Amino acid sequence: MPFVIGVDLGGTKFAVGAVSTDGELTVACRSEPTLASRGADDVVARIAKTVASVVDQAIAETGAARGDFLGVGIGAPGPLRRASGVVVVAPNLGWHEYPLRDRLHAATEMDAVLDNDANCATLAEWWVGAAKGANTVIGMTIGTGIGGGIIVDGRLLHGASDVAGEIGHTTIETSGRRCKCGNYGCLEAYASGPAIAERAREALDGDGHSLLRMVNGGDIAALTAEQVYNAAREGDEIAREVVRDTARYLGTGVANMLNTVNPEVVVLAGGVTAAGELILAPMRAEIRTRAFRPAVEAARIVTGELGNRAGVVGAAAAYLAERKA
Amino acid sequence: MPFVIGVDLGGTKFAVGAVSTDGELTVACRSEPTLASRGADDVVARIAKTVASVVDQAIAETGAARGDFLGVGIGAPGPLRRASGVVVVAPNLGWHEYPLRDRLHAATEMDAVLDNDANCATLAEWWVGAAKGANTVIGMTIGTGIGGGIIVDGRLLHGASDVAGEIGHTTIETSGRRCKCGNYGCLEAYASGPAIAERAREALDGDGHSLLRMVNGGDIAALTAEQVYNAAREGDEIAREVVRDTARYLGTGVANMLNTVNPEVVVLAGGVTAAGELILAPMRAEIRTRAFRPAVEAARIVTGELGNRAGVVGAAAAYLAERKA
Repeated sequence: MPFVIGVDLGGTKFAVGAVSTDGELTVACRSEPTLASRGADDVVARIAKTVASVVDQAIAETGAARGDFLGVGIGAPGPLRRASGVVVVAPNLGWHEYPLRDRLHAATEMDAVLDNDANCATLAEWWVGAAKGANTVIGMTIGTGIGGGIIVDGRLLHGASDVAGEIGHTTIETSGRRCKCGNYGCLEAYASGPAIAERAREALDGDGHSLLRMVNGGDIAALTAEQVYNAAREGDEIAREVVRDTARYLGTGVANMLNTVNPEVVVLAGGVTAAGELILAPMRAEIRTRAFRPAVEAARIVTGELGNRAGVVGAAAAYLAERKA
Repeated sequence: MPFVIGVDLGGTKFAVGAVSTDGELTVACRSEPTLASRGADDVVARIAKTVASVVDQAIAETGAARGDFLGVGIGAPGPLRRASGVVVVAPNLGWHEYPLRDRLHAATEMDAVLDNDANCATLAEWWVGAAKGANTVIGMTIGTGIGGGIIVDGRLLHGASDVAGEIGHTTIETSGRRCKCGNYGCLEAYASGPAIAERAREALDGDGHSLLRMVNGGDIAALTAEQVYNAAREGDEIAREVVRDTARYLGTGVANMLNTVNPEVVVLAGGVTAAGELILAPMRAEIRTRAFRPAVEAARIVTGELGNRAGVVGAAAAYLAERKA
């Protein structure tokens, strides 16, 4: 059975797995710390080592032959240039103009393809997950940042310079919060995990009673989005308001995608999905007030089915899509 | 030489012309008042009559045969359903669930295709205008409303229910101005012609001296966007500020499209283009501060080349795209 190796590269860890070319089977998945401070070439050497052991394990588990492994797909934080396989800037990795694809190709002696990590996650959910079979799909991964991917007619939209899908960096308030990207009022500056925690800290500036004052031994600086969700579930008023606002911001961002791309499915993934209906219900309500009715009626808003696997499966899918194109 | 008839249907007038199938030649163009109050079937009867005389005139002018006219493309205000050829709601026409395509087919005995007017205008500029040859294009027609169209891989993006491209109805201020669509903070509520005039009227609420107080014999209620541009060109401070804000809002909307769709070309058309560099220069500056650099560098921001012809040419293009698909 033919396989593609998927590599999901993040700032703190990377994951590698072997994915069957129908997407149905992922084997020998393993995750390692990225240790970016050791330098890019060192990271690549360790990824290559992990790829080799994933191949060995997949052979042992499935009886595949060595020739069954067609290549390596890599999902990496953008911005990047796919045609040359270069990561342009990756602040979390400290990389600048790094030729990741060619270095990994040299280190693994396998054909390699590079794509954006959020694109890969979206492609995975379209391939074998929550958006399977849909023609037009929006994917959003809401965690430390907000990544996005857009699928049109069953193909990733990359745009003219591989920037397409940066939904987290669309403005929802023209004079709004400063975003790490330099812009003001980006969706990410309101609804990423750290932004949720920051808004909660600001809400605690007043005198109001809140469970949030007690978590982390009272160290408000250490507050996380997940702790905000938990407190909201306990009925904490301040936490509930922060969650409601988060739903409103996310709903605005999604509604903008409904009115411009008009997808069949919107797949949400990442830390924010831990909040479940607490966020999803008011988010859907916000979308209904903002987007055109035929767009609302056409779109299923769902959470991803693949969880942590999405990055690895999607990197393999990106490899196959690129080689088929 | 084969031709397609293009019909551009608006609330106040409709235009009909014969377009050669390479898009290079448009002949026998004529424009008539819509007179929507006479009812939809009456409008269709008059469009059909105009189509017949356009065909006659095109034959006389070009020596084409009657069999050279392949069909009719119709650009109409959305929302609409292309598959069934139905205009869902057109407030300016007073139409609701009107089967425009089939009625025009019956009245003309020609094969007919229906698409959104802003989609058609974008398609025309891609076909033979300012975005010719580009792969990914954003079109925006900024006039009484703000219509939009998105071209991906040389094809119009329609989405799951023909809503795609409604760029005017993306939120740029979550708690912003009320829009006619029912939403708050839409781009259209800030940067359409009437919205520009409204913001100018609000700016005149204070005591500041302004040329705008003198136009229309002092009737501020009659103020138009074009008068605001003219006053800004004369150096009027209040008018300049309104224009600067307009550029900022439009730049925000365009930047959002750059970060999500990452087009090669953004084509601007409609009344706002009369302001020329007065709006385009600060708009480009705003886009640069908001969108990712690779997206900014990849995108030409230009005004349309086809002017009033865009609707007719684009309706013909939509016909050909649909019949080729």
